[in-house]
Amino acid sequence: MTGPTGEFAFIDWLRRRIPADHRVLLGPGDDTAAVRFAPGAPVLITTDMLLDGSCFILAEAGPRRVGRKAMAVNLSDVAAMAGRPVAAVVSVGLPRDGGRWLAEELYSGLREMADAFDTAIVGGDTNSWDGPLTISVTLLGEPTGRGPVTRAGARIGDWLLTTGPFGGSIRGRHLDFTPRVREALRLHESAELHAMIDVSDGLAADVWHVCTESKVGAVLRADAIPVTDAAKDMNDGRPPLVHALGDGEDFELVFAVSPADGGRLIDTQPVEGVMLTPIGEFVDSGLWVESAGNRQPLEPHGYIHSLN
Amino acid sequence: MTGPTGEFAFIDWLRRRIPADHRVLLGPGDDTAAVRFAPGAPVLITTDMLLDGSCFILAEAGPRRVGRKAMAVNLSDVAAMAGRPVAAVVSVGLPRDGGRWLAEELYSGLREMADAFDTAIVGGDTNSWDGPLTISVTLLGEPTGRGPVTRAGARIGDWLLTTGPFGGSIRGRHLDFTPRVREALRLHESAELHAMIDVSDGLAADVWHVCTESKVGAVLRADAIPVTDAAKDMNDGRPPLVHALGDGEDFELVFAVSPADGGRLIDTQPVEGVMLTPIGEFVDSGLWVESAGNRQPLEPHGYIHSLN
Repeated sequence: MTGPTGEFAFIDWLRRRIPADHRVLLGPGDDTAAVRFAPGAPVLITTDMLLDGSCFILAEAGPRRVGRKAMAVNLSDVAAMAGRPVAAVVSVGLPRDGGRWLAEELYSGLREMADAFDTAIVGGDTNSWDGPLTISVTLLGEPTGRGPVTRAGARIGDWLLTTGPFGGSIRGRHLDFTPRVREALRLHESAELHAMIDVSDGLAADVWHVCTESKVGAVLRADAIPVTDAAKDMNDGRPPLVHALGDGEDFELVFAVSPADGGRLIDTQPVEGVMLTPIGEFVDSGLWVESAGNRQPLEPHGYIHSLN
Repeated sequence: MTGPTGEFAFIDWLRRRIPADHRVLLGPGDDTAAVRFAPGAPVLITTDMLLDGSCFILAEAGPRRVGRKAMAVNLSDVAAMAGRPVAAVVSVGLPRDGGRWLAEELYSGLREMADAFDTAIVGGDTNSWDGPLTISVTLLGEPTGRGPVTRAGARIGDWLLTTGPFGGSIRGRHLDFTPRVREALRLHESAELHAMIDVSDGLAADVWHVCTESKVGAVLRADAIPVTDAAKDMNDGRPPLVHALGDGEDFELVFAVSPADGGRLIDTQPVEGVMLTPIGEFVDSGLWVESAGNRQPLEPHGYIHSLN
């Protein structure tokens, strides 16, 4: 947490804005931050780097939305563990010609998203350089008393449920999504979650990650997968279902529960603001998509022979 | 901890190389890592981003040394708190034309340095892009039972000691230094450290950071400051002392102790491999350099009117 001149402004800026948090023993301005976690609890750690021209187009998105996304993608990872976000550090490479406005807009976006989920920004490293904007956020979280929900616990026969629709996030949702932190915590209270993931690589790819870690397979029911309006409006010759399966950056949760828990969740819909939808089930092996009783292989990157 | 194709190789690569560590409940491959810390202990958190062309020249340094430095600068921050490093996450933006060799060399350097200090790499985010190499490491550590040593505890009359020589690190040491983790822990056992910092911005600048946080001033004794051979060989018209005060990236420790502890440390030299040297003392205000009884103002960036 040391660096050239630009950082001092950032640290001062942060210090003026950080609310008191009894968990933060040391915030910005020392060699490290210090955060006290609950005795005996593990610390959840996740990191994501966003790069201009690759993960976003700065000129189109604007720095505030980039800041929000940089924090949100990490929050989504903690949500996928059904954890509570606690504290984040941020490292940034700022283009020299971006000026103070760029930095402040970026940090404002980071803070807005962090504040919305009671997350303290406890440190950072700000650099200026001749390259494009690059930003890396590391988020620490803590599991609830029920422990973290990993990708590894799905069982054959489990139902596959999701919090929301898929596809076409490039139209704006990849920048403006709300990470499913609260929804994940509510789900964790409401059912025994066997496995969970947030959809960043794509629905098919992320379901396959769960399958791989859980050593099972999965069948997705094509007609049951909720598809966004954006996916339906892509008009690029690829069917909406293909977008829903392959696009990625939806940041919705996909999770495995027993059929009994699945049925109850669908009947009671305990999570405010989202429609829990069953989209398939776990089987002994393979990744499949089923439509009108016809089961065919699904490639993890979303490819289906009969549709592509 | 999600990303495009490149990450999967990195995660697999990491998994094959990570030694068992009972503290790591979840390593790479899930949405977050999970690390169990000692009950009740705070978590030390630090992050540093290194950028090609700014913090290193990839073509000159080579990716392995860049990896080592990226981990080492964070280890040095935890050392400055007299903490023990525990776990790190790494996010990387790899130039597309770098190929697999670049990534593997970089990760090898990261792992070499992490292994040398019993630090588990528990996650990462690897991206390819059209920009230059960028790498951000976040390191978590834990304080010893004596607690973290901050920048804020120096008292008027305290002695200012250091572990080593300063200046000219651009000649190679900024890439190849060994972070003073073990030395800091040994010091923390040997004396009551009132304040400590690792010298990254420059000796004068970092002493000034301690002064600011401790609300005191400091006088450095010009003749006592150990100067590297590299600083003496710079031959750029600036005196070696000016290099020692201003260059930065020495990654030596500077710390404040009582005169009694300072005298004892110097007499007994309890830290193997380094010569503890008194270079000044803390006063009520200002930053000064003293030579042959003549005290003059020292600018935090290392500027001295009579020498520059």
